[in-house]
Amino acid sequence: MIGTPVTPTEFFEPVRDDLAAVEAKMRETMDGQHEALSAATEHLLASGGKRVRPALTLLTARMLDAEPARAASLAAAIEMLHTATLVHDDLIDGALLRRGIPTLNAQWSPAATVLTGDFLFARAAELASQADSVRVMRAFAQTLMIIVNGEINQLFISRGRVSREDYYQRIYAKTASLFAVAAESAAVLGHAGETTVASMRLFGHEVGMAFQIVDDILDFTSDEARLGKPVGGDLRQGLFTLPALYHLEQFPEDRDLTALLNGRAGDPETVNRVVQAVKDSGAIDSALTEARAYVARAQTALAAMPDNLYRRSLSELAEYLVSRDL
Amino acid sequence: MIGTPVTPTEFFEPVRDDLAAVEAKMRETMDGQHEALSAATEHLLASGGKRVRPALTLLTARMLDAEPARAASLAAAIEMLHTATLVHDDLIDGALLRRGIPTLNAQWSPAATVLTGDFLFARAAELASQADSVRVMRAFAQTLMIIVNGEINQLFISRGRVSREDYYQRIYAKTASLFAVAAESAAVLGHAGETTVASMRLFGHEVGMAFQIVDDILDFTSDEARLGKPVGGDLRQGLFTLPALYHLEQFPEDRDLTALLNGRAGDPETVNRVVQAVKDSGAIDSALTEARAYVARAQTALAAMPDNLYRRSLSELAEYLVSRDL
Repeated sequence: MIGTPVTPTEFFEPVRDDLAAVEAKMRETMDGQHEALSAATEHLLASGGKRVRPALTLLTARMLDAEPARAASLAAAIEMLHTATLVHDDLIDGALLRRGIPTLNAQWSPAATVLTGDFLFARAAELASQADSVRVMRAFAQTLMIIVNGEINQLFISRGRVSREDYYQRIYAKTASLFAVAAESAAVLGHAGETTVASMRLFGHEVGMAFQIVDDILDFTSDEARLGKPVGGDLRQGLFTLPALYHLEQFPEDRDLTALLNGRAGDPETVNRVVQAVKDSGAIDSALTEARAYVARAQTALAAMPDNLYRRSLSELAEYLVSRDL
Repeated sequence: MIGTPVTPTEFFEPVRDDLAAVEAKMRETMDGQHEALSAATEHLLASGGKRVRPALTLLTARMLDAEPARAASLAAAIEMLHTATLVHDDLIDGALLRRGIPTLNAQWSPAATVLTGDFLFARAAELASQADSVRVMRAFAQTLMIIVNGEINQLFISRGRVSREDYYQRIYAKTASLFAVAAESAAVLGHAGETTVASMRLFGHEVGMAFQIVDDILDFTSDEARLGKPVGGDLRQGLFTLPALYHLEQFPEDRDLTALLNGRAGDPETVNRVVQAVKDSGAIDSALTEARAYVARAQTALAAMPDNLYRRSLSELAEYLVSRDL
C-alpha cells in the first residue's frame, strides 16, 4: 500500500545544504547569552530530532522558488518554536527522558527550565521576523496560541473518555498546526497564489495529522530502546490516543480500559495489559489506515504543485512518516 | 526640583479613548479560549497596573502622527508582553501577591501558570503583528530575548554583592528595554526619521530606568498597604538595588548588610534593620537624584520633538514617574 520504504536521507538530500544553514541559525541562538542558557540550548539542539519540520519548510520553499535565506530563517523559527514548546511540555509532564536523553527539567530547576523555554520562544519569533513577512509572523504567533490553548485543554479536560473528534482537535493543536503553518508560510515566501498557499497548508496539515497518529501508534507497538522512553506512556498519563479509542469502540466494557479511564494515571500492570490488548485487536490497523488516508489526501494536494525534485521529496517525506519503524 | 506633582489622569487624558481601545484589544484575548484561560486572563487584566507602558506608546504615536489603530495594537502588545513576563516571574519567585491581589500561581498549578504565560506571549506577538511592521516585530522579539536573558542572569549570578553597573544592566533588561522599544516602535509607526526614532528610544530608555529606580526606592520607603506586598522584598530575595548599593558604598562593613550578602535570603529582623538603616542614610536621596538625572536626559531627548499636546503629556509622564508616592 505504501510502496518501497523511504529513508529520511533520501528526501533530505535536495535540501541538505539548506538544512546545514538552518542548523547554523539555530546555533547562533547561543551567541552572547548567559553560559547556562547556552549550555541548555546546546543540549537541546544536540538531542534534537530528525528535523522533519525544517525539511518540510525547505522543500516547500525550494519547490515554489522562495528566497533561500528567508526560507532558512522560517525553517529555523519553526524548529525553535517546536523545541521551546517541548521544554515547557516536559516540565509540565515531569518527563525525564526525551529521545532517550535526559530532559532539561530532569537536570535543572523549574525556574531555569521555564526561562529557557521563554528564551527559545523569543528567539523563534526573532528568527520568524528574519523571514521578513508580517503575514508569516502573524500566522506563526497564531499557531503558538493554538498549540498552547491545546495544552491547556489537555491539562483541564482532555483526560479520560474522549471522542475521536476530541482526539483530532488535540493532535491538530499539538502537531498538525505547526506542520500546516510551516508549509503554508513557505508557500507565502514563494509568492505563491492563494490556491497554492491553501493547498500547501492542507498538505502540511494532513502530513502533521498522519505523523502524530503514527507517533501514537508507536507508543503501543515500539519498544523502549527505539522510543527513547517507556512504551504506553500516553495511557500512563491517562491520555487516550487513536489506537486506544478504536479499541474502546470495539470493547466498550473492557475492564482494564475502564479502570484507566476512571483513574488519572494507570498502574503499570494495567497499562501493560491494555497495550497488549490494543496490539492484539484490529485497533492498530484501523489507526494506521487512517494515517494513510491523511497521507493520501496530502498527496492529492501536492499533485497540483510544480513537478520538480522538491515535490518528489515532499511526497517521499509524507510516505516516510507513515512507514517509519512500524 | 520636580515642580508640581502630576497625577496620572492628567497625562493619560489626551489618549483616554486610545487606552480604551487598547483595553478592548487586550480583552479580545479571551475570545474563544478555554474558560480556565479566560478566567486567568480576566484576573490578570482586572488586577492590571496603571497602563504606563501603553500611555507611553500611545502618546508617542499621537505626537508623531502614527496611525491610531496600529498604535493601539502596539500598545496592547507591549502591555500583554509585560503581563506575560510577570506571570512567569511570579511563578519563579513564588510571589503570592502583586499589587495587593493574589498572583496566578498562588491559585493555580505551576503547569497552568506556565501555559497561561506562554499563551499571553503568543497573544502579545499576534498583537504586535497587527501593528503591521516587520521592524517593530523584530524589535519586539529581541526585547523579549533581553528580558528573559536578564532573568536568567538574575537567577544564576546577580544575587549578593553586585556593582552599580550590574544593577543598571539588570534594570535595563527588566524594565527599560520594554519602555525603550515601546517609544521607539511608536516612532517607527509614525514614519519618523532615524534621528527621531533614536531620540524616542532614548526617551523610553531613560524613563524606564528612572521608573525602575523609583520602584526600587519605594521598596524601602513605602508601606505594605501602598505597595501591595511587604516592604524590603528585594532584600529578602537577596537582591541589592540602588539604595542598598549606595548604602553599601558608604558603609562597606555594615554587619547586617554583609549577613544579607552572604545568605541567599535574609531573615525578617535583619531585613527590617537594613531597610531602616538605608532610609536613615543618604542612600535614598542619592538614588532619587539619579532617577531625576535619567528624567532630565529624557526631557532633553523630548525637546527635539514636535511641540504639541502629546509631547507635553509625555513630559508629564516622565515627571510623574519620579514624583509618585515618594
